[in-house]
Amino acid sequence: AGAAFDETDHMGTVMKLCSDRHYIAHDHHTPKRIRRGISCVYGPLGMELRKNILDQWWSSMVTTRPQVFGINTLHGFRGGSVALERTLKLIDTEALHQALRQGEMTGKSKGDALQKLLQGSVSMRTSLLQGALEQYIASLELVNRKLPFGLAETGLCYQLPEDQPGELDCSPSEVMQASLVWFCSPRTSSQWLDYWARQRLQWWRKFALGPSSFSCSDVTVGEEGENVKRGIKVLYQFPWGSEALETLWNLGNTELLQIHMGSQAKLQCRDGKRSVVPHVISVSGNIDRGVQAYLHNSLQEVKKVDNRQRQHMRKVLKLHPSLTPVKVAVNMGKGATSDLRQVCESLLQELLDGGISSWPGHLESTSPSSEQLKYDEMGVLFTVVISDSTLESGLVQLRSRDTTIKETMHISEVKNFLAKYIAAAENV
Amino acid sequence: AGAAFDETDHMGTVMKLCSDRHYIAHDHHTPKRIRRGISCVYGPLGMELRKNILDQWWSSMVTTRPQVFGINTLHGFRGGSVALERTLKLIDTEALHQALRQGEMTGKSKGDALQKLLQGSVSMRTSLLQGALEQYIASLELVNRKLPFGLAETGLCYQLPEDQPGELDCSPSEVMQASLVWFCSPRTSSQWLDYWARQRLQWWRKFALGPSSFSCSDVTVGEEGENVKRGIKVLYQFPWGSEALETLWNLGNTELLQIHMGSQAKLQCRDGKRSVVPHVISVSGNIDRGVQAYLHNSLQEVKKVDNRQRQHMRKVLKLHPSLTPVKVAVNMGKGATSDLRQVCESLLQELLDGGISSWPGHLESTSPSSEQLKYDEMGVLFTVVISDSTLESGLVQLRSRDTTIKETMHISEVKNFLAKYIAAAENV
Repeated sequence: AGAAFDETDHMGTVMKLCSDRHYIAHDHHTPKRIRRGISCVYGPLGMELRKNILDQWWSSMVTTRPQVFGINTLHGFRGGSVALERTLKLIDTEALHQALRQGEMTGKSKGDALQKLLQGSVSMRTSLLQGALEQYIASLELVNRKLPFGLAETGLCYQLPEDQPGELDCSPSEVMQASLVWFCSPRTSSQWLDYWARQRLQWWRKFALGPSSFSCSDVTVGEEGENVKRGIKVLYQFPWGSEALETLWNLGNTELLQIHMGSQAKLQCRDGKRSVVPHVISVSGNIDRGVQAYLHNSLQEVKKVDNRQRQHMRKVLKLHPSLTPVKVAVNMGKGATSDLRQVCESLLQELLDGGISSWPGHLESTSPSSEQLKYDEMGVLFTVVISDSTLESGLVQLRSRDTTIKETMHISEVKNFLAKYIAAAENV
Repeated sequence: AGAAFDETDHMGTVMKLCSDRHYIAHDHHTPKRIRRGISCVYGPLGMELRKNILDQWWSSMVTTRPQVFGINTLHGFRGGSVALERTLKLIDTEALHQALRQGEMTGKSKGDALQKLLQGSVSMRTSLLQGALEQYIASLELVNRKLPFGLAETGLCYQLPEDQPGELDCSPSEVMQASLVWFCSPRTSSQWLDYWARQRLQWWRKFALGPSSFSCSDVTVGEEGENVKRGIKVLYQFPWGSEALETLWNLGNTELLQIHMGSQAKLQCRDGKRSVVPHVISVSGNIDRGVQAYLHNSLQEVKKVDNRQRQHMRKVLKLHPSLTPVKVAVNMGKGATSDLRQVCESLLQELLDGGISSWPGHLESTSPSSEQLKYDEMGVLFTVVISDSTLESGLVQLRSRDTTIKETMHISEVKNFLAKYIAAAENV
């Protein structure tokens, strides 16, 4: 048995596996969504994977950092001045029809009534930056006006359609974003940009099977000279090309002054003994694309020859132990007695109550060996097999996804073993 | 010192405390939002409180139940047939302007082009029910077509404005919902409705300081006879009246058949030896209103006489240990040395790394006694005070929010003590 890997087939294999194994709900729009890095309808396993990624992001960026505070802003905002800009508006259909009728009645052009409605409606956010900048002044009290500090948020944002109106796929789309907005001294903002880029690349690689597919790349916008804005992208090398998982910008203080209408005094922070308007580093990740990156990165296809000398491709989804949606499947041999079924149920409940996500494999009716192929495709970390002898000896078999080695263990030790294994994998 | 409680003032006190203590960002729309039970802009503490409620909901309804699966559906959906119904549409302003121009050019009424645009646009979801019903067929494989099972989701939903278009506050609003859609045998659906109502009431009361403010109430819609639909609401008694935190409905199979266009064969599940189209129990909670309920329920005002015989009202936010956003504040006496500051920093980091949310109180400049008043208003469970003697003896003072008793403890024991305290409170 050796490892085989074909770039061109890989995408198709990942897609089929995601749909077969309840990562992503099947839909003909899905391949396009995946390339664009936007939200799909997730099945139970995809939902759990995205949740685990978000939890790890939060724990690394917020929970363990005393200078970072989480916030929750609204998805829709009233943007006053920029009525002419292209945005996604949330519009009550009844209000729209009423505006059109009003336009007809008063004899004015419909444009006027409509313009008023549009100005009064809510625009949907396209990033989490603005919400954080708006909360800046309120959060100064939290930190005694001392730099640096950050405001973090995870949540859904909306993207304008890529195509022009009238073309085929002109639907707006949803993206789960994770954002840190970091306020720091103008003297050190450029070092902070590098610091966060290093941190973020390291974080993405920590959970990867093939870390070399993750990389960083510098970007700049604006003309040479004063207006140039520096940024860094964290990229993942998909079969169809590199895509940005995360984008970091050194924004200076322009946006902050704009949103707070230039009231310098209220914006000032302490930078050592001086008072300054901070510079803003924006760190913004696309978690839906992160889900895809880890799915592509983790799928291993291994050639295997069975008892009858036939070749198979064994597919194993080697997601990181912290990210994989199902940590353990509880299984039993065929034709098991009701006593055995009870042992399975109570082990399953013990694991679930201990916060270890577990699969009720014992409820399934196919043979254990075909079950195992399925669990490998699901990325299940361990399979516990309970058999007749368990009733007498209390011993179960524990099979590892990554080593395929089977260990014998007392049933009372399973929960602790798994809890320790997962915790250890997280702290590597 | 005795407990005082004034219903009419209570609301104002809660509101002020929420704004002062970074639960809810200050905004003149906030009081109305709170009464309507919709999302506010949350500060760091409110964000954490809502997250803790959502996590507890998820753990009680999904993680620990093998028959419940989590899903993630899109916020916007294409609703084909109901173009005339009042909905919230997500509209690209450029497409809207283009539709209006097209109407002008072709000479047809603008209504036609607009109608086409509206039909093609995405409607924003108002509940999580439809998404779960759509995933029903795909999830049958997960459970071998065996009843009962459930699909759970938490996420933002949108509400149509309460007022008519043109009136003052006609903005649509956002609500964080938590939903379980439970598929069960028609024979037992009525028992399941009662089961889930009991479970939910018990859950809300588990985290309450005053459990009697939470109650259940039966509701029905439809005429007597065939079409009557039975439901149960879980209510909280706010100062201004009772509001529903959670609504449970026994929906029968009407909606399920509707969404899947009556394809009975595909919908059938095993109920013992028979094949049936399941009945649907919908359990849907408003988590933003839950945040408000717990804030109102947890605030205690206690009369206190200080050293100079002046009366004060001490406000303590006695949120449940599992829900309270900040578990511990690390503080030190005034004029502390840099050695002491280092001890504080390293204890803080130890607690944060252990997943115990902690407040860097040692960075604040006011006196320890006024800090304590603030921590009580924030709902901080414990305050650790590190003083000069800590450097020699390793001993710190640990003050409990609920008992106000101060204990002396070795600094190396603080983390374990807190972890055990919080875990114990969760398992009561």
